[in-house]
Amino acid sequence: MQNEKQSLKGGEFIIKETEAKDVFIPEEFDEEQLMIKKTCEDFLEAEVFPNLDRIDKLEEGLMPSLMDKAGELGLLAVSIPEEYGGFGKNFNTSMLVTDVIGAGHSFAVALSAHTGIGTLPILYYGNTAQKDKYIPKLASGEWKAAYCLTEPNSGSDANSGKTKAVLNAEGTHYLISGQKMWITNGGFADVFIVFAKIDDDKNLTAFIVEKDFGGITMNPEEHKMGIKGSSTRQIFFNDCPVPVENMLSERENGFKIAVNILNIGRIKLGAAAIGSSRKVINTAINYANERAQFGLQISKFGAIRYKLAEMATRNFAVESATYRAGQNVDDAYERLVASGMDSAKAKLKSTEEFAVECAIIKVWGSEMLDYIVDEGVQIYGGMGFSAEAPMDRAYRDSRINRIFEGTNEINRLLIVDMLLKRGMKGELDLMTPAQAVASELMSIPDFNAAEDEGTFAAEKKIIKNLKKAGLMIAGAAVQKLMMTLAKEQEILMNIADIIGYVYVAESTLLRVEKLIAQKGENAVSGQIDIMRIYLQETVDKVHLAGKEALNSFAEGDELNMMLMGLRRFTKTAPFNIKDARQRVAKQLIEANKYCY
Amino acid sequence: MQNEKQSLKGGEFIIKETEAKDVFIPEEFDEEQLMIKKTCEDFLEAEVFPNLDRIDKLEEGLMPSLMDKAGELGLLAVSIPEEYGGFGKNFNTSMLVTDVIGAGHSFAVALSAHTGIGTLPILYYGNTAQKDKYIPKLASGEWKAAYCLTEPNSGSDANSGKTKAVLNAEGTHYLISGQKMWITNGGFADVFIVFAKIDDDKNLTAFIVEKDFGGITMNPEEHKMGIKGSSTRQIFFNDCPVPVENMLSERENGFKIAVNILNIGRIKLGAAAIGSSRKVINTAINYANERAQFGLQISKFGAIRYKLAEMATRNFAVESATYRAGQNVDDAYERLVASGMDSAKAKLKSTEEFAVECAIIKVWGSEMLDYIVDEGVQIYGGMGFSAEAPMDRAYRDSRINRIFEGTNEINRLLIVDMLLKRGMKGELDLMTPAQAVASELMSIPDFNAAEDEGTFAAEKKIIKNLKKAGLMIAGAAVQKLMMTLAKEQEILMNIADIIGYVYVAESTLLRVEKLIAQKGENAVSGQIDIMRIYLQETVDKVHLAGKEALNSFAEGDELNMMLMGLRRFTKTAPFNIKDARQRVAKQLIEANKYCY
Ligand SMILES: Cc1cc2nc3c(=O)[nH]c(=O)nc-3n(C[C@H](O)[C@H](O)[C@H](O)COP(=O)(O)OP(=O)(O)OC[C@H]3O[C@@H](n4cnc5c(N)ncnc54)[C@H](O)[C@@H]3O)c2cc1C
Ligand SMILES: Cc1cc2nc3c(=O)[nH]c(=O)nc-3n(C[C@H](O)[C@H](O)[C@H](O)COP(=O)(O)OP(=O)(O)OC[C@H]3O[C@@H](n4cnc5c(N)ncnc54)[C@H](O)[C@@H]3O)c2cc1C
Repeated sequence: MQNEKQSLKGGEFIIKETEAKDVFIPEEFDEEQLMIKKTCEDFLEAEVFPNLDRIDKLEEGLMPSLMDKAGELGLLAVSIPEEYGGFGKNFNTSMLVTDVIGAGHSFAVALSAHTGIGTLPILYYGNTAQKDKYIPKLASGEWKAAYCLTEPNSGSDANSGKTKAVLNAEGTHYLISGQKMWITNGGFADVFIVFAKIDDDKNLTAFIVEKDFGGITMNPEEHKMGIKGSSTRQIFFNDCPVPVENMLSERENGFKIAVNILNIGRIKLGAAAIGSSRKVINTAINYANERAQFGLQISKFGAIRYKLAEMATRNFAVESATYRAGQNVDDAYERLVASGMDSAKAKLKSTEEFAVECAIIKVWGSEMLDYIVDEGVQIYGGMGFSAEAPMDRAYRDSRINRIFEGTNEINRLLIVDMLLKRGMKGELDLMTPAQAVASELMSIPDFNAAEDEGTFAAEKKIIKNLKKAGLMIAGAAVQKLMMTLAKEQEILMNIADIIGYVYVAESTLLRVEKLIAQKGENAVSGQIDIMRIYLQETVDKVHLAGKEALNSFAEGDELNMMLMGLRRFTKTAPFNIKDARQRVAKQLIEANKYCY
Repeated sequence: MQNEKQSLKGGEFIIKETEAKDVFIPEEFDEEQLMIKKTCEDFLEAEVFPNLDRIDKLEEGLMPSLMDKAGELGLLAVSIPEEYGGFGKNFNTSMLVTDVIGAGHSFAVALSAHTGIGTLPILYYGNTAQKDKYIPKLASGEWKAAYCLTEPNSGSDANSGKTKAVLNAEGTHYLISGQKMWITNGGFADVFIVFAKIDDDKNLTAFIVEKDFGGITMNPEEHKMGIKGSSTRQIFFNDCPVPVENMLSERENGFKIAVNILNIGRIKLGAAAIGSSRKVINTAINYANERAQFGLQISKFGAIRYKLAEMATRNFAVESATYRAGQNVDDAYERLVASGMDSAKAKLKSTEEFAVECAIIKVWGSEMLDYIVDEGVQIYGGMGFSAEAPMDRAYRDSRINRIFEGTNEINRLLIVDMLLKRGMKGELDLMTPAQAVASELMSIPDFNAAEDEGTFAAEKKIIKNLKKAGLMIAGAAVQKLMMTLAKEQEILMNIADIIGYVYVAESTLLRVEKLIAQKGENAVSGQIDIMRIYLQETVDKVHLAGKEALNSFAEGDELNMMLMGLRRFTKTAPFNIKDARQRVAKQLIEANKYCY
């Protein structure tokens, strides 16, 4: 589209600036994308929302039939290539679908397990025969898919699975034996992506397994806190014969597949979180406008307005980051294909490139949603605790998101680990800017430096400074702790917090800047407030996380110097965050819905 | 006990120091109290824990029969006077029972609704005939009690209820009509404390209503997110005839009764939260020591150790505040009775006196518990989401605590409101110290001031400074906003946060200081770490809340001066909080249980 667009590499945001014109913002979805969005919304209204109780009761056949209907509408095929019966839409369009459908509780989980971890391994790693055989059926929903990685003793440490695959004497089939756990869509899936180790391999291999291959049994449905309508099973493979041609990609390439598919799963989880939380925010605003106590609608009370504004702020912020990253993936894909790479490989490479961003969006999305459902319950008061009102389900369903697709602990660790590895490999030059910050620390601040000018000059300066803070701390931690840093998880968590907050805050700032360019300041005053609120909160978080980190590995003069640097980098002009929240709340309350 | 004990008045902690020797700490419970504690623990182990699923299924007759058994053991009569068949134990003993039983999920709710809001209105406001008739039966558990205040349109605004009481023509009975909602123990209670308005009264009147008076019907059990085993009903009163002698206290005194009984309910909710969270912490430690990933017990990972340490820290801190306040209530009672006050009245006056502390403990207890169950779920990973593992129930059951006994929003508002009212009435001299802080702000800090000496001199100085910060901000807010402050809820929330954190942190410090005096530093190194962790967190919270408040009502030079003051008052020496948490986690993991 835009030829002059400057795209950063994955993770590069921490050392470089991005221009507003170069990010995609959700306000730029085109007619066709908005029509797809509308289709999803209508589908939820017609088929899902009226049936939430039946779905959660796991009514026999209901979920598969909903998937069939979604399939008929094309919702399972949005980004499947046309040659396999799909619509060949780009990544951000599939993100938009995931976002809207995200409001669909258990149905959203079933759909995204099917289209994501269920379908994509074949689409991206399958050979032509495999794709020809499976993708059209998966795209239409005729067949449903599940993904079998986790085992009772192998969760976060996914490569440690004990499931075995042994070639039969005839050399025609692998016999798979082992126990898989927590398998979403397990109860009705026709196709399973199963990870197992061939003989005594160190690494997993992936297989496409059909339900009817034999040797597959299951435990009854798991009883869960939430997403009760999502089928979750333990599955036992007992010499299940899988034709050799159903091995996916190469032997021992399974862990790589798992990891790469999870990258996509993570950013999509963030997208789904936006959709669920938008629904919760709408519901909360409606209730706050309806419910009266002390002779006033409770939306008149500052305590409630604070919550509404804060909910909207976090949603808007995570949304900004999510679609920015989504577009980065699309752009990277286009570049790779233009340079001659095969489409499936380019899809994988483009998400791998933005794996840091994917992990950030997973963590920030799921934590945003947990915050929002929690406040949703609270705004409802006693009714928030009633299983007959909407917040109870939202609260319970939300909680899984910090656990699956890699726990938030694992994802936080990965954020830092991946960045540092890229630095070490020379893919990302972290050293030069980190050293620049270090020498800036030694120098006397230049009080006469010309003030930056232009839109949001102050805010951009803050983002720059926060990045410096992050680089200072990460750089010092690497230097000081060297090989033991990997074991200092508390410090890694602090650094992950800084990186994630900065990414989300910067994305929000860029979005609002672009919005102003498009619509003018007046039309987006609420978004400007939201951006400033989130930025202020980010500054405070960075200061706290930074202080905690520094205090835990530095000492004496060095510590003092860095603490002083941190204060300098997190210094901001006083900001009346209360008034900003009041203004945002006012817009929400007047619109009686999330309006950004 | 201690004659020379200096007890502060309720709320006075914010302007005065307390000496460690003057607080009660839970390590001081005597033999008899520990025996009662043991009885409660044994009861839970024998009767409640094995039956949690049956209880949550609301199995017919099960909960009342458990209450009967608890009654036989005397658990419903701990602080009922001996003349009514009770044991006449002091307040803190009843707190200890509430604490331990707090781990009992729905049963804990049923028991505490019965012994608290169900029984106490009669015990404290009943006349002799009423007490003679009802208390022995309630103390033994022969009769069970419920409390009917909330209505569909009257929750937080409890005095706005529409339930009516009309004297019949004969003058013998009040006919009560109206709808009550969310009535705990409703399904099996024999006695209801019902709040209604006589004719067109502005204020509520309380009545003792027996199940068999007639005109009472109920909806089926509410379906709830958690505490599913606790009976919760809507109750309809339809010309229910209540003998005039069953009016409790005086006409229009009902709201006062409701409020005073809630004071007790609030501090006890905090106590129950300690007990539940202690159980969750134990369960989490056990699991973290058992579950291995990446070839290591997950308790070896810093991310998990952080959580365990933080869970223990918050529990210890809230526990310190809870029993400190409990003893204050006991001491106040003793003084009032010694001065000739009637026992029931003294009970009420003594909790009313500490209403600010009760509200703090309600809020901090419930939020501590929600944090702990949330991390409990996370430590369990996927199993945290399983309804067959313990964290799911803990997570769902916990969530009610921020809603009932006054929502946490209402309680936060009350904390500040009650303090300011006492200030205005001259009961609490907030002005003098607030002015002293204001003039300290103007003066140049005395860098030559002799350093304080003695145990925890630095920590005590911090607490003093944090109080100054609170007084500075509250004082300025009152002056600046005058009559509109009541409407500035965001600022009131900030101030409530400061007050509450300071109270809990000070209580923790005093407890640890007393512990050292008793056992020596070495024996309580973990507690010292915990205290320093909590204090550091408090400093950070006060700084943030203070900054947010100041930025929202002050400007220009005045703002700058106060921000500088805030920085001065929250300045602390660098503290390696990570190492402290690691040491606490180590002790927990080695003990394989909560060990403080
Ligand atoms: C409802 C549901 C649906 C699911 N659907 C699927 C599915 O369709 N297919 C599939 O394959 N799997 C699925 N899963 C499994 C899910 O991916 C795992 O539960 C998740 O990866 C966590 O693994 P675990 O449960 O074994 O937790 P564990 O790995 O045992 O983790 C326990 C705790 O330890 C922490 N931890 C672990 N390792 C480390 C470390 N190195 N450093 C710091 N902390 C660590 C974790 O963060 C967590 O807090 C599902 C799970 C659930 C509950
Ligand atoms: C499981 C359960 C058991 C219960 N047991 C009992 C019982 O045994 N007896 C009984 O009488 N009641 C009981 N209750 C009722 C409980 O006390 C009320 O739910 C609670 O007081 C909140 O009232 P509400 O639900 O009407 O919420 P609302 O008062 O409608 O509050 C909704 C939201 O508005 C906020 N809000 C309200 N007023 C203000 C204000 N002035 N300023 C700022 N924010 C405000 C609240 O904090 C909340 O966030 C129970 C409730 C539940 C859910």
